[in-house]
Amino acid sequence: MGLVVQKYGGSSVADAASVKRVAQRIAATKRAGHDVVVVVSAMGDTTDELIDLAEQVTPVPGGRELDMLLTAGERISMAVVAMALGNLGVEARSFTGSQAGVITDSAHGKARIIDVTPGRIREALADGAIAIVAGFQGVSQDTKDITTLGRGGSDTTAVALAAALDAEVCEIYTDVDGVFSADPRIVPAARKLPRLAYEEMLEMAACGAKVLHLRCVEYARRFSLPIHVRSSFSDRTGTWVTDISRTDPSSTQEGSDVEQPIISAVAHDRSEAKVTVVGVPDKPGEAARIFRAVAEAGTNIDMIVQNVSSVATGRADISFTLPKTDGTSAVAALRKVQPAIGFEDILFDDGIGKVSLIGAGMRSHPGVSATFFDALATAGVNVEIISTSEIRISVVVRAESVDEAVRAIHTAFDLDDPDGAAVVYGGTGR
Amino acid sequence: MGLVVQKYGGSSVADAASVKRVAQRIAATKRAGHDVVVVVSAMGDTTDELIDLAEQVTPVPGGRELDMLLTAGERISMAVVAMALGNLGVEARSFTGSQAGVITDSAHGKARIIDVTPGRIREALADGAIAIVAGFQGVSQDTKDITTLGRGGSDTTAVALAAALDAEVCEIYTDVDGVFSADPRIVPAARKLPRLAYEEMLEMAACGAKVLHLRCVEYARRFSLPIHVRSSFSDRTGTWVTDISRTDPSSTQEGSDVEQPIISAVAHDRSEAKVTVVGVPDKPGEAARIFRAVAEAGTNIDMIVQNVSSVATGRADISFTLPKTDGTSAVAALRKVQPAIGFEDILFDDGIGKVSLIGAGMRSHPGVSATFFDALATAGVNVEIISTSEIRISVVVRAESVDEAVRAIHTAFDLDDPDGAAVVYGGTGR
Repeated sequence: MGLVVQKYGGSSVADAASVKRVAQRIAATKRAGHDVVVVVSAMGDTTDELIDLAEQVTPVPGGRELDMLLTAGERISMAVVAMALGNLGVEARSFTGSQAGVITDSAHGKARIIDVTPGRIREALADGAIAIVAGFQGVSQDTKDITTLGRGGSDTTAVALAAALDAEVCEIYTDVDGVFSADPRIVPAARKLPRLAYEEMLEMAACGAKVLHLRCVEYARRFSLPIHVRSSFSDRTGTWVTDISRTDPSSTQEGSDVEQPIISAVAHDRSEAKVTVVGVPDKPGEAARIFRAVAEAGTNIDMIVQNVSSVATGRADISFTLPKTDGTSAVAALRKVQPAIGFEDILFDDGIGKVSLIGAGMRSHPGVSATFFDALATAGVNVEIISTSEIRISVVVRAESVDEAVRAIHTAFDLDDPDGAAVVYGGTGR
Repeated sequence: MGLVVQKYGGSSVADAASVKRVAQRIAATKRAGHDVVVVVSAMGDTTDELIDLAEQVTPVPGGRELDMLLTAGERISMAVVAMALGNLGVEARSFTGSQAGVITDSAHGKARIIDVTPGRIREALADGAIAIVAGFQGVSQDTKDITTLGRGGSDTTAVALAAALDAEVCEIYTDVDGVFSADPRIVPAARKLPRLAYEEMLEMAACGAKVLHLRCVEYARRFSLPIHVRSSFSDRTGTWVTDISRTDPSSTQEGSDVEQPIISAVAHDRSEAKVTVVGVPDKPGEAARIFRAVAEAGTNIDMIVQNVSSVATGRADISFTLPKTDGTSAVAALRKVQPAIGFEDILFDDGIGKVSLIGAGMRSHPGVSATFFDALATAGVNVEIISTSEIRISVVVRAESVDEAVRAIHTAFDLDDPDGAAVVYGGTGR
């Protein structure tokens, strides 16, 4: 009966009634004999409301002050959760990120955790109390200013604390039952995955599955910390994310044939756009100049393809995908370097979607690609860009073909749940 | 051009528009060459809303967690004020009570300031920035937990910081023009007092004037720190509270005759009730047993009167006043000790009011009492209890006579403003 770290998102603590329900669950975990550390996000829409308030005062709030403002949100939720536990007769103490020892760099709004020194949490646990910790926040090592961790910050806080406290498991509570083999709103027969390897979860997070953030999975993998993604609305087992690959027979809970290619899930992402730089002079270094210009505009590029250069013109086209929201600044950056590089044009296309097949088993099964592209061809889906890793195949298709592509691949790899339709899934990228 | 500490209450920072207005004023003070430290309360009704939230979760929120919750209110306002200053091109940094070095004891909800170590504030000022500090909060020296200072806490934070930083003045911004010679809703000709001694302000605060809290005036007096009470809606000079007595000719700005008894103001208070313990055996120690019982119920007694004991019965009546809100618990405590002490009955009367005349000049002018009681007699006001200090005379009268008593005394001491009616005054105890 070791330590359990539980993380509850904003929708799990949206109002007083939700907070009371969460408190019941926390108290039950404690009664079962565990030490419990709880990480909470801000209640419901609190963070958005605080951002609205800031924008009423200034169009460009400073990072230090915006972090100070936003961290009020978790301060409220953690105190209220601790009170609700007190009302159940369970001692709970709330701690800010700073009090919990979440030490970060000074990058306001997207701080990185440098160290976790949870001395006060250990004291609270030693006293038999439950520790409630504000997610998403920390304190800068250099300036002692309050910082926020940015997207996925509360999940990352939970995993970081769990690692520092050597917890048995980090439970991430959400409003869905776990990680699914596809978005059930597209594939009604998608099934809940009982178990995923870290690298599969990382690929899924990178490919549009929103249930866990890339960053928290990376952190968990580094410390081999098991994550259990589950619903705060039920007691069902969710999805375990661990370092035991699903191709390891001892972990194959479903008794499936381990010699079959093990494919976990189909992910999709409609948040990207495609930029094509037309007629790039085919000289060494031109592609690097293009990508440097885009990087300096603060944009992360995802997939890249360069077509074969035309013998007649000595020029090639380079296409890449990037977050839609970065499109304007990336195109502007490219326009600036156009005269120097001498390419012909820039095309911006936000009518695309990305569909990915993920599975740790595919690395040893050469037939996966063939099945994948057969399925797309049979469904009449045209592929614009292809990108692969050892455990993933991704394609860019027209946005309107995404649903059809997801369904075709899901069926082709026998991922459909034999027991019928899954519950509706709110956690992937639509 | 020294350091100015400014404190803005919740009504001065109620919404984004108010925050922007306050930021303009702060920026103007900085531009005038001052170093500026600003103490803010929570915006508008934030604190009440947070208390409501706590009550939805538990009827008895723990003190530690309630303080953690409530301090989110000032965290929001201080960050927003700092952002608004940033928007004006003025560098401002916000600090929590803990970051500002407000060290307290561990009495959650009513913590006392033990020490102020404003190292980070000094750094910010040295960098040319304005420091924005959360009022009402500190950090416990022993437990390192976040505390709140209770009633008058933000004013006290401002005065304590001003003292620790050796400020020229602590400006308390409010929604009235300063401290008045009486409540203008009762006395339309009441005038704004340009200057008051600490002890006069203390007596006024104790007698129902709500514009400054007793505790912050006591703190300012201990450090001889000038307080300037003024309106956040105008640039007019308000009321200076200093240790220069108004009988000191050098401080008599109005050129009045210093040989005249200097009377500052008439205060009134309708928040008290009167308890009469009837037929107390006239033996040494009985009064002490009564007041001990009331004190153990957590009640502060204000005025006390004991009538002459009856020769026939050997018994006397003891009356005292106390906050109306403490009436139930005080009476219950007395009922418990009634058999042991053997008094006859307890009467509770919440239909009273207290009217007080305050002025540092009255100590050397024996005619003051005569004029005071003449005025009440002429107005037909019956006096139930009398209490005096060197610079104050207070009487308990029927609640319905309070207005008449205030007007009669105000006129009798020539306090009416020769220039006519003052602006309406929202700061005293109605």
